[in-house]
Amino acid sequence: MVQNLGLIFKKVPVASPIVGEHIDIESRDFDADTEAPEGGVTVKNIYLSFDPYQRGCMREPDNGTYSYPFVPGQPLVCGAVSEILKSSTPSFKPGDLVWGMFGAEEYSVVPPMLIPMVRKLDNPLALDPILFAGPLGISGLSAYASFYEIGKPKKGQTIFISAASGGVGQIVGQLAKLEGLTVVGSVGSDEKLNFILNELSFDAGFNYKKENVSDALKRLVPSGIDIYYDNVGGETLDAALGAMKDFGRIVGCGQISQYNLPQDEKYGIKNMMNLFLKRLTLQGFIISDPEFMGKYAVEFFTKMSAWLKEGKIKTKESVTVGIENAATCYLGMFTGENFGKTVLKVANME
Amino acid sequence: MVQNLGLIFKKVPVASPIVGEHIDIESRDFDADTEAPEGGVTVKNIYLSFDPYQRGCMREPDNGTYSYPFVPGQPLVCGAVSEILKSSTPSFKPGDLVWGMFGAEEYSVVPPMLIPMVRKLDNPLALDPILFAGPLGISGLSAYASFYEIGKPKKGQTIFISAASGGVGQIVGQLAKLEGLTVVGSVGSDEKLNFILNELSFDAGFNYKKENVSDALKRLVPSGIDIYYDNVGGETLDAALGAMKDFGRIVGCGQISQYNLPQDEKYGIKNMMNLFLKRLTLQGFIISDPEFMGKYAVEFFTKMSAWLKEGKIKTKESVTVGIENAATCYLGMFTGENFGKTVLKVANME
Repeated sequence: MVQNLGLIFKKVPVASPIVGEHIDIESRDFDADTEAPEGGVTVKNIYLSFDPYQRGCMREPDNGTYSYPFVPGQPLVCGAVSEILKSSTPSFKPGDLVWGMFGAEEYSVVPPMLIPMVRKLDNPLALDPILFAGPLGISGLSAYASFYEIGKPKKGQTIFISAASGGVGQIVGQLAKLEGLTVVGSVGSDEKLNFILNELSFDAGFNYKKENVSDALKRLVPSGIDIYYDNVGGETLDAALGAMKDFGRIVGCGQISQYNLPQDEKYGIKNMMNLFLKRLTLQGFIISDPEFMGKYAVEFFTKMSAWLKEGKIKTKESVTVGIENAATCYLGMFTGENFGKTVLKVANME
Repeated sequence: MVQNLGLIFKKVPVASPIVGEHIDIESRDFDADTEAPEGGVTVKNIYLSFDPYQRGCMREPDNGTYSYPFVPGQPLVCGAVSEILKSSTPSFKPGDLVWGMFGAEEYSVVPPMLIPMVRKLDNPLALDPILFAGPLGISGLSAYASFYEIGKPKKGQTIFISAASGGVGQIVGQLAKLEGLTVVGSVGSDEKLNFILNELSFDAGFNYKKENVSDALKRLVPSGIDIYYDNVGGETLDAALGAMKDFGRIVGCGQISQYNLPQDEKYGIKNMMNLFLKRLTLQGFIISDPEFMGKYAVEFFTKMSAWLKEGKIKTKESVTVGIENAATCYLGMFTGENFGKTVLKVANME
């Protein structure tokens, strides 16, 4: 019997989740010798991907418009890179590295109904497995599929990306550079600004904590934006609506600035008249929908693996070590403290 | 020499145009015996189409993102059904009934550069010419093209239409009924509600002045909206965002509730997170864009003419008589006083 610490969902928060009230680190026993459930597996989690959409899963059971609500008393569910401990399915054997949606905990028991969503890590280029919790995982695929499907990039056009150093933003920006676009990003610190300009070779950027977004866009993109890739919503979305060119596209990936606000405190968008004044298209997506994951997963994985191997796409992870720090790691996405794709390292590789 | 009264654009309004300050009725002489300009025509205007988008033309000359700004000192520009008085182009002869974009005035001098946009009234079914200032004009084509191009209607789905008794809304609703959709409309009076329910056979509707839009949508469309056809923006758009189904489409035709508000008084949309929560698509359009007018004009005209002749589509015009009442007619669109498609009758047919 070993300790199995996890980040447990306790109660639906109205605003920011508070540790001890809405989420908490709790320990539950786990017997490493226990056989896997019939048709399932047990796993040791190595890397957990924390992503802002998980805030949306902290809600009352409802009409199912989004990813599944978290279950009170159970760990948050994360994209995970994990090692099979015990298997009672022919698909996996002990020691296999897999990718799946598992609990934010040290060890997970995976029942047979979840096995179809578990994949062996297909890693012919011998990439660092942490990449499967980031650019080769949900955040990378989200960036890739939506950039092409909704953004409809054309060489020479201009894209503006918010949360540009984050897990999705950093990938979108580099894809856009590869496609010959002019790339402008907003970030929340000078360190992050330096990263997108000098490491990722964005054409321009600004720190939204130091400059009003509308002013920055007027200064940096006076002729307007063709694609706005929205990770933050709120004031930045409003400013982007005002700065769009005719026939511009807005990719609705996320609105991290709004997730922790009660409804009556949410930012009110005032520039919606641009919808028809400029003939804009705004489209939101969820990566698990077939026209995204189903359509793009294979080409994404092949291309992204090669780009990572060749160094054509660089990545930066914000790695927190230790399951006992899971709450800090999760909350750091919302405060802007994390720099890069948020990953929790739960265990060492064998 | 005769009097030529017109509704003249004087000055850009910040909020509602005020008669005498921003718009005014003024008289200028017109000599009915004057020859047409070389390559042009002179016309006597019979029906003028007033449409909410004209408020957007009352602005400073700018980056040209929308229809042309009106020129101070010149009449508002309207879709018009008119009679050729004098012609110096072989395309038209005196007495021809034409459709064009002419001044809001009794007589217009049309220079050669505007002649390509003038069309002889193609009226094989001998329909009432007033219909060319409504369901067979810009408002009808806008309804038709955007309903199919953006709305992507499917039999059995539910559409919600705001300003449902107006020039565009009344056509969209009837097209949706023909396509087998469930049709729900919002209007601003009980008389209009009676019209959409009993004359146009909408499935449901409400008077937004008597019932909060969110409450009404919960009551009338508890299972949600597939298509929201937006003519009003503001609070209704916000409520519709909250009531959409997954993968819903929002057609951005207009936002009449917002046109006369200064920027800092515009309604702030708070439900934008539904963009990705529900994977919505919002798209705005301007009818003169090629993927709308160019793609749909011919099929629209053929089908709509037949539907009107057969009585499968009914229309209601709000007809004001007399150019001296042009300002009242125009402003009545924004107060909700007009009931049906706003048309100014300037002269009798010969």
